[in-house]
Amino acid sequence: MIPGLLDFAGVAVFAVSGALAAGRKNLDLVGVVVIASVTAIGGGTLRDLLMDRHPVFWVARPAYLYVIIAAALATVAWARRFRPPALSLAIADALGLAFFTVSGAQIAEARGLSGVVVVLMGVLTGVAGGVLRDVLSAEIPLVLRKGQLYATAAIIGAIVYLLLQGPIDRTAAALVAMATIAVLRIAAIVWDLTLPVFSLARHERDRHR
Amino acid sequence: MIPGLLDFAGVAVFAVSGALAAGRKNLDLVGVVVIASVTAIGGGTLRDLLMDRHPVFWVARPAYLYVIIAAALATVAWARRFRPPALSLAIADALGLAFFTVSGAQIAEARGLSGVVVVLMGVLTGVAGGVLRDVLSAEIPLVLRKGQLYATAAIIGAIVYLLLQGPIDRTAAALVAMATIAVLRIAAIVWDLTLPVFSLARHERDRHR
Amino acid sequence: MIPGLLDFAGVAVFAVSGALAAGRKNLDLVGVVVIASVTAIGGGTLRDLLMDRHPVFWVARPAYLYVIIAAALATVAWARRFRPPALSLAIADALGLAFFTVSGAQIAEARGLSGVVVVLMGVLTGVAGGVLRDVLSAEIPLVLRKGQLYATAAIIGAIVYLLLQGPIDRTAAALVAMATIAVLRIAAIVWDLTLPVFSLARHERDRHR
Repeated sequence: MIPGLLDFAGVAVFAVSGALAAGRKNLDLVGVVVIASVTAIGGGTLRDLLMDRHPVFWVARPAYLYVIIAAALATVAWARRFRPPALSLAIADALGLAFFTVSGAQIAEARGLSGVVVVLMGVLTGVAGGVLRDVLSAEIPLVLRKGQLYATAAIIGAIVYLLLQGPIDRTAAALVAMATIAVLRIAAIVWDLTLPVFSLARHERDRHR
Repeated sequence: MIPGLLDFAGVAVFAVSGALAAGRKNLDLVGVVVIASVTAIGGGTLRDLLMDRHPVFWVARPAYLYVIIAAALATVAWARRFRPPALSLAIADALGLAFFTVSGAQIAEARGLSGVVVVLMGVLTGVAGGVLRDVLSAEIPLVLRKGQLYATAAIIGAIVYLLLQGPIDRTAAALVAMATIAVLRIAAIVWDLTLPVFSLARHERDRHR
Repeated sequence: MIPGLLDFAGVAVFAVSGALAAGRKNLDLVGVVVIASVTAIGGGTLRDLLMDRHPVFWVARPAYLYVIIAAALATVAWARRFRPPALSLAIADALGLAFFTVSGAQIAEARGLSGVVVVLMGVLTGVAGGVLRDVLSAEIPLVLRKGQLYATAAIIGAIVYLLLQGPIDRTAAALVAMATIAVLRIAAIVWDLTLPVFSLARHERDRHR
């Protein structure tokens, strides 16, 4: 699988998620496109900087930026006429997470980096765009909202990708890994799946007041 | 026009804006200088990392850092004796946005990058310092506050710079583009100019409660 | 002193601080490890990107990541059985600040960079991890909380490191600088040491309401 294809799909869905998030903040159209762009290029840009890949993907292929602008404008046009489904932001975000996590893991794996580095590179690539979107929108990062298997889904997907390297070819491994992440994440939202939380809150409360 | 000159002007005005923003947060003098420095070097550093320009500008020419420290200390000294004008932070920020947007666009254009990449590189270079300042100050990023033509001014300025490449020489194009950004942005603040906003807020309200 | 050793110590203590901070946010175990990792690798990664050192330290030596995971899990296990001391987060953070500030300053100094660049590189390397932790945790960055000599301790430590380059050898200079930072920072917390603050708040209040 050509990483470029993952990136096109990833920027498009993250651009949608950025546009939807911006729509909650009453930005003007230009602001929406800027937030959508930063969300869409954030993860891949971090991946390229961390692995010293130059030019970064959207400098090398400006077509990414046209895809982002088109996706953001289409989201705005669509959202003006129809109500966006309640889960639309979460689903666009889940797909973006899936595409970019696998893209980051793939490139790291192709360079022969260690397994734990492949997983971390996948996770950082997957979550960076959404974290930038949330920080710029002054929201608590989605990665932090409790019990929604956010980073967990990315980690499991990256590990699935690594484990499948032997048995099946890379394209199939990438597809399975992406499906794993998207399904886990959407299932976590729909059925409210959680992992046990680790909390110091009680301790802290006892201490400080 | 030597990009270095833009950068000197840009770091100075962003250092002033960082110092003024820090002054609202009751930081000590060292904290003020640190916030001023991060604000002032943020955009140019991102620009250099994204285009793989090493050493980054303030490593190559440490004089930038002395300019920043001097500008931050002068702002503090001045603000202790006189009230800063109400718009001082916004104006310093507008000038910084103008200088750095054009500096980013200029370097990208000189490398023969695609028009859409030149514009995005200009915008990212222009807004990054202010976004860092706002995030570090735990403020909602200025780029997001509605209806103030923030990113819009940067985008229009970068496009003006590109369009003027044929007709007039680069220095003149850069000056016109900077003036465009600064005037648009300050006019937007003074006369409260806005673009129509895109809002999902009503939809979301209907859905979620 | 091998910079690698500083980095191992630095990632371990910052991983502890990240895990403790995550514990206040009711994250699940994976979320804790992710926040701990980002906190622990943030400063060194920024340092490596700014000085164009590739592969970045944790890509070059994945053992860092195992240290981080182990430190985060040990923190969780320990915190479940015993109350963490009230100051534990602040102390882990102070040690991380000390290790990474000196590591950043050391590498910059070894490259013959200008004194003011060495100090800034030390400060950015020292504070970046903690800032990322606080931004991801939606907390006001510790570097900003008033009157606690945060950046001040890093700056003084980096200057001490530079000044000792003549008189004593580098390892000794690094140790003295680290001790200076940790002691200053912990003393500032325990005895509530402050520098005079710079405030525009009164001016601003007069103006805006």
